[in-house]
Amino acid sequence: MCEANAYMIQNGTEELIMEAVDSVEPEEDGFRLVNIFGEQKFIRGVVHSLSLVDHKVYFKSKADA
Amino acid sequence: MCEANAYMIQNGTEELIMEAVDSVEPEEDGFRLVNIFGEQKFIRGVVHSLSLVDHKVYFKSKADA
Repeated sequence: MCEANAYMIQNGTEELIMEAVDSVEPEEDGFRLVNIFGEQKFIRGVVHSLSLVDHKVYFKSKADA
Repeated sequence: MCEANAYMIQNGTEELIMEAVDSVEPEEDGFRLVNIFGEQKFIRGVVHSLSLVDHKVYFKSKADA
């Protein structure tokens, strides 16, 4: 399975938001994350970067864009 | 390996940009994609959505944001 862990980059640190994320879908002002267990979480921000082989997805707040 | 294929969404269609993408790093006005073969490509746009279990990363142009 190729799910990834989602992190928020804030003040130079990475905070784990959600593990085992499958889908990331745009919603107003952010994204809805759904993991392989069916859990959902809304993230206000944008996708900063991806490191897929490392299973990592990074978000940042829009203000830092 | 958990690389993904990158697509650009344009006019309601998906155009394959690059296969086997590992890293997606922000650069001015867009992202630099690097695949597992070390090939690089610059994409002008933003990340639209992810479907990681399906190995898919979708981009869109900023104008459509």
